[in-house]
Amino acid sequence: MGFFYNLEAVFKPSSVAVVGASPSFGKWGQLIMSNIVAGRFPGPVYPVNPGQEKIFGLKAYRSVTEIPGKVDLVFVATPARTVLSLMEECGDKGVKGVVLITSGFSETDNHGKKMELEVAETCRRRGIALIGPNTMGIIAPYADLFATGTHSRPGRGNVAFLSQSGNLGNQLIHWASQHGIGVSLFVGTGNEALISCTDLLEYLEKDSNSDIIILYLEGVEEGRRFLDVAARVNLKKPVIILKGGRTDAGRLAAQSHTGSMSGRDEIFRAVCRQAGLLNVRVPTELLDLSAGFSCLPFPRGNRVGIVTLGGGWGVVTSDECNERGLIVPPLPQEIVDAVGRHLPPYWSKGNPVDLVGTRDPKAPIAAVEELLRWDGVDAVISLGIIGRLEIVRLLVDSTRAADPEISEDFLKKVEEFSERYERDYVSSMVDLMERYEKPILGVTLAQTREGTVRTVQGNRYSGVFYQTPENAVNVLARMVEYQRRVGSLRTL
Amino acid sequence: MGFFYNLEAVFKPSSVAVVGASPSFGKWGQLIMSNIVAGRFPGPVYPVNPGQEKIFGLKAYRSVTEIPGKVDLVFVATPARTVLSLMEECGDKGVKGVVLITSGFSETDNHGKKMELEVAETCRRRGIALIGPNTMGIIAPYADLFATGTHSRPGRGNVAFLSQSGNLGNQLIHWASQHGIGVSLFVGTGNEALISCTDLLEYLEKDSNSDIIILYLEGVEEGRRFLDVAARVNLKKPVIILKGGRTDAGRLAAQSHTGSMSGRDEIFRAVCRQAGLLNVRVPTELLDLSAGFSCLPFPRGNRVGIVTLGGGWGVVTSDECNERGLIVPPLPQEIVDAVGRHLPPYWSKGNPVDLVGTRDPKAPIAAVEELLRWDGVDAVISLGIIGRLEIVRLLVDSTRAADPEISEDFLKKVEEFSERYERDYVSSMVDLMERYEKPILGVTLAQTREGTVRTVQGNRYSGVFYQTPENAVNVLARMVEYQRRVGSLRTL
Repeated sequence: MGFFYNLEAVFKPSSVAVVGASPSFGKWGQLIMSNIVAGRFPGPVYPVNPGQEKIFGLKAYRSVTEIPGKVDLVFVATPARTVLSLMEECGDKGVKGVVLITSGFSETDNHGKKMELEVAETCRRRGIALIGPNTMGIIAPYADLFATGTHSRPGRGNVAFLSQSGNLGNQLIHWASQHGIGVSLFVGTGNEALISCTDLLEYLEKDSNSDIIILYLEGVEEGRRFLDVAARVNLKKPVIILKGGRTDAGRLAAQSHTGSMSGRDEIFRAVCRQAGLLNVRVPTELLDLSAGFSCLPFPRGNRVGIVTLGGGWGVVTSDECNERGLIVPPLPQEIVDAVGRHLPPYWSKGNPVDLVGTRDPKAPIAAVEELLRWDGVDAVISLGIIGRLEIVRLLVDSTRAADPEISEDFLKKVEEFSERYERDYVSSMVDLMERYEKPILGVTLAQTREGTVRTVQGNRYSGVFYQTPENAVNVLARMVEYQRRVGSLRTL
Repeated sequence: MGFFYNLEAVFKPSSVAVVGASPSFGKWGQLIMSNIVAGRFPGPVYPVNPGQEKIFGLKAYRSVTEIPGKVDLVFVATPARTVLSLMEECGDKGVKGVVLITSGFSETDNHGKKMELEVAETCRRRGIALIGPNTMGIIAPYADLFATGTHSRPGRGNVAFLSQSGNLGNQLIHWASQHGIGVSLFVGTGNEALISCTDLLEYLEKDSNSDIIILYLEGVEEGRRFLDVAARVNLKKPVIILKGGRTDAGRLAAQSHTGSMSGRDEIFRAVCRQAGLLNVRVPTELLDLSAGFSCLPFPRGNRVGIVTLGGGWGVVTSDECNERGLIVPPLPQEIVDAVGRHLPPYWSKGNPVDLVGTRDPKAPIAAVEELLRWDGVDAVISLGIIGRLEIVRLLVDSTRAADPEISEDFLKKVEEFSERYERDYVSSMVDLMERYEKPILGVTLAQTREGTVRTVQGNRYSGVFYQTPENAVNVLARMVEYQRRVGSLRTL
């Protein structure tokens, strides 16, 4: 049903209005309005509030119909009882879409449910694409439109997020922006009185900015249609789902939250598996997967080469690989020889390749390349080059404190060298991925100031550096799983 | 065998020497030396290096025996071939312990193995407690002794870390210091030529600073003795183990790393379970558990109250609880009434308690207290109060950018209020834990600048705030598991 509405105009509006806009710090009408303005939406932004002359220095209008120019998209933060007549006004004005922040509808009581049905019916009649009610807003980076209560502003990218829970969605987006994960669209779908997740999936199927789709679901109305659409989209663009309300306790919580009755989890998971869709268990996994799926080439198989800065880490990573169905193949003599040319003679001579603290700055990159070049591995996990800068900084501080003879200039150079080395390492990894079309998953030695994703201008892939080996292994295992599921479905 | 040696003098030395001390940035002798000095070890620090007059402004000695004062502990970073005669010298000097950083021993080849046996035998004969060889060093915060290659300096606390892998140990300690987890002792045990993890466990059993013991193991020589000791210690102080080399791939990696042959994982786990010991799967779990186990009262049962800032999160957390054997009990009418007094009428009226965006600053604290007061729950998980400050800061920045009329003074006050509120909230949680002797596990709304643990001066417990619900639930589930295992063993 999505295509009956002009969702393109909703998510790439040329002008927006905020009904209930307010200068009062922390109110919904102020949250949305200030986010849109501070986020530099390029088109006109019309505050609507009969009680104000100006808001943020912009002329405030008494009603939507009073606005002189055309209005594509209207955000609404006024009480539930005002909404029905407002929708008629929006219809008169030729508005394409409404994002209805207002709560107090079907999630509250029967009266709210009745109002919600009427609002939806009015929008349907007037051809208005209604998002919500009870939504936390939307973010459309390609339109420079940031319109959620939480003012995170992720960069442009190819991951679309749809969330039936506002607060979970906001948290995901906040994490995404902190970790450098580029976003094509975020929609808090709220009560889905009119436009559902399924409609949005159909929109995203054709949206050229979106390559990966992340869903947080609590319940789906038209289950059959949802699965058909999701399965179809998933063949082209990975659809990754976190389903809340898997257990009795969660289901009970979901019921009081969105009023949705979610079905039994085992059935949902079985159906998803059949349809080739990936299910995840926790929100952070959605983030990890969106980084890997959106920034790396897909592996053609499950064989992993590991390059590590220290033995213990290689052990832990090998264990994780083994437990997740990934193979850590032994190296044939020719590869041992090839890798060995770059390392001290006492290196591990196996997979994981332990760099044994070599000081040759080229060795870590050469070791990764030798593995990628070999047709015995489909992916490489690189442990601990990125993040060393943080450790170097600690050491520089100590040396400054301990050694009165050390030259400040030398210490500055050490830090600069480490910074440059990490930057160059990221570039090398991206280059290697382009060259060999195999993914490299990095793991940081220490938490870095940058996030998980590091882009390199002008490249198709980006560097991805997780904080732990288990996260990297999980993402790789899921990429393999996706390839297998979709591969076997595609050949049907 | 640990008590034959004076480990007390090793971990609380009054003077230390560094053999192979060097001014050359990045060499082991510089790393250790600069860390000890910059970490403000209070006793004398003697650099030993025949090629230098002074190091870091301190007089350098040609040998250990040349040092005028007494020397409790010696760090050694000179090549393997120099070590044997050096141990005799240390014996002559009356040194209590040696931390042998040097590698090139049993982890390398048979020749190295032979040297290692000789070194160990010499130390045994001379009564020197030998840590290593092939260790990344030790950290003893209560002695202000920081002597690892990675210069993380965690604060004093009650968690002891023993690690058979240096790099994993260093990473754990780095994380611990970033997350505010207080440490009593860290020992990289290296090849364990003389002092083993088991000896150190016996030492920690009596160490009054250590309440929780974290082990990263790859292999244990005297398996029976280790298990007997670990099981005994665990009844008094939780012993939490990560065993590397669980799978074939990991075992192979471990073998080339420390030369240890680790046994079959299923057997190890079964034996641990019988002994009441907790096993974890990944390094970050060690961190999570050390925060919770060291800072919170233990729950007396598995019933959880959840207080959440948003519905979706309550759902996800309930699911996790259910899947981990924790019960999220429904609230009886009296508790619904008690909680309801602090919330708007449209609140969820169940467990999870959804705060439904109430603006009353006292409500989140009151809701937690009403649940703790009720004898139907043994613990509370509080979702999303801490971390709101980060979101407020984003909003303040936006408002400053969007609203030309806003007063800077007002925005400053908003930020200050949020800061104070978080501080007060932490204090309240700590107070409530002292009052009700039940744990409160927090989850942050957004990554904060502070770490997981927030101490409140003069209190027995500390605030613990994880980044995700699943981490909080896992820790709580493990605390319940520990109580049960140890409880049933204690009554035997």
